[in-house]
Amino acid sequence: MRQITVIGMGLIGTSLAGALRAADERESPLGALHVTGYDVDPANTSTARGKLAIDREAATLAEAVQGAQLVVIATPVQAVREVLAALPPLLAEGTVVTDVASTKAEIGAWAAELLPPTFPFVGGHPMAGKAQHGPQAADLSLFQGAIYCLTPAPQVPQYALELVEAVALTIGARPYFIDPHEHDAYVAAISHLPFLLSAGLVDITSRSPAWRELALLAATGYRDMTRLASGDVAMHRDIALTNRAALLRWIDEMMHWLAETRDHLDAADSAALTAMFERVRDHREAWLHHNERLRPAKNTST
Amino acid sequence: MRQITVIGMGLIGTSLAGALRAADERESPLGALHVTGYDVDPANTSTARGKLAIDREAATLAEAVQGAQLVVIATPVQAVREVLAALPPLLAEGTVVTDVASTKAEIGAWAAELLPPTFPFVGGHPMAGKAQHGPQAADLSLFQGAIYCLTPAPQVPQYALELVEAVALTIGARPYFIDPHEHDAYVAAISHLPFLLSAGLVDITSRSPAWRELALLAATGYRDMTRLASGDVAMHRDIALTNRAALLRWIDEMMHWLAETRDHLDAADSAALTAMFERVRDHREAWLHHNERLRPAKNTST
Repeated sequence: MRQITVIGMGLIGTSLAGALRAADERESPLGALHVTGYDVDPANTSTARGKLAIDREAATLAEAVQGAQLVVIATPVQAVREVLAALPPLLAEGTVVTDVASTKAEIGAWAAELLPPTFPFVGGHPMAGKAQHGPQAADLSLFQGAIYCLTPAPQVPQYALELVEAVALTIGARPYFIDPHEHDAYVAAISHLPFLLSAGLVDITSRSPAWRELALLAATGYRDMTRLASGDVAMHRDIALTNRAALLRWIDEMMHWLAETRDHLDAADSAALTAMFERVRDHREAWLHHNERLRPAKNTST
Repeated sequence: MRQITVIGMGLIGTSLAGALRAADERESPLGALHVTGYDVDPANTSTARGKLAIDREAATLAEAVQGAQLVVIATPVQAVREVLAALPPLLAEGTVVTDVASTKAEIGAWAAELLPPTFPFVGGHPMAGKAQHGPQAADLSLFQGAIYCLTPAPQVPQYALELVEAVALTIGARPYFIDPHEHDAYVAAISHLPFLLSAGLVDITSRSPAWRELALLAATGYRDMTRLASGDVAMHRDIALTNRAALLRWIDEMMHWLAETRDHLDAADSAALTAMFERVRDHREAWLHHNERLRPAKNTST
């Protein structure tokens, strides 16, 4: 019986714990599992247990990791550092540690600093989420077909890689090994910049003197473009702060693009605008075509 | 029996025609209706008829508007001008003309230039849409609860206002009288700028040397933030060109915001970022709270 502990019973931690428990032990590379959950807020652990996402509720970090062969840190980014610092005296030798946070380079550096080599660390980032957060929003199928980035340092032992890869496979995700700095540069473009644009759209419209009228006229397009702005504040702050360099680069790209497009518009350059609108439509449709999992149902009214 | 003609059998024209036909004539302020449809592409008119959205298919503009008391122009913006120019010799005196396009000031000016006062013009813009376009995507409930902007010039006779207002009410929308320039300034913020941000996100990511990896890692957040970029090219080009001044102003607002946010990030100003992320989350949630119609189902996994 393999013991896995998940620290942090938010949306991702609870969904991951639940997906591990729901897996068929005869088919999973992990075999039979016992999953322990822990959260600084006991109400979250209790909700996760109520959803049958964990076998056991732990009341303290020490109790949670006792006997664990794998510890999954699923807290907000800044809390990952505290958990990494607290773990070494609590773990049995050889215990593997992983995380699920949205930035990887800084967390990898913390692990190298805080965990002795007897506790191999394999950074991870399942590319899945939803608008709601907290354990009550947990979803066993959240990771089905999703890319699961793994960002191990070069010296990590094979058994640790295989164990975390097996977790990704068991919850239905697709493991994808990638350098942590590359990971951060990429997610800045496809995840963190989109959040900022969403936040910016809300901020400039809601501080406008015309906000009352804007709020009345705004419909589904505005709703969907601002969905990310409703996300968890601490998570997005930590992401921004731990992925600053990459995010700054993509903000610059966007400002450059807006300046360029502003010029086309100012010159009423119909040909340039048409070419650009066609190009983005074609790229976006081709992308969607190759990502069947992400294609919305045909009849979705949006 | 009131005769209404809809010119342009796209998503909006066909949905509007169908919603008019589907209304209970005993409850509608319009009473019994006969709806004629016309599109430069006869296949579209035929599809609309196949969906029972119209009573009669017309083969020409002249045939379409014969006997009409109300003509609804539901073509792309640039084609509205051609239709307005062609209508006067074809209409009976007193026929009311309206449109459903996304910009209103320039169209109002065209109507003032091209239509004699015997054909009152009431600009209109139902604030509804969906990702798909064309008559096959038509949806009788598309306008249920939606705001329907009406932008009449001051001298428009009362019977024309009442007729177009009755159309809005009959299809389940909420008529909202507004100055055309104000309308354009507002929709630039809540509709046209969001489209541009969506297009920009696709453009800068898809032209990156890392696009192959970005495309692999991009998930639901990217998908939703780029949905508008898949929209109809001609429609968005016409919108951008006929609403340039307002759109330029909002692009400037966004660039200013990005510069400001870039500074906070560069300084690792955690307090400023936290305050901003909290502010946008609260504004967005309050907006959603007051727009029950736009609230997605609780369990929508996004």
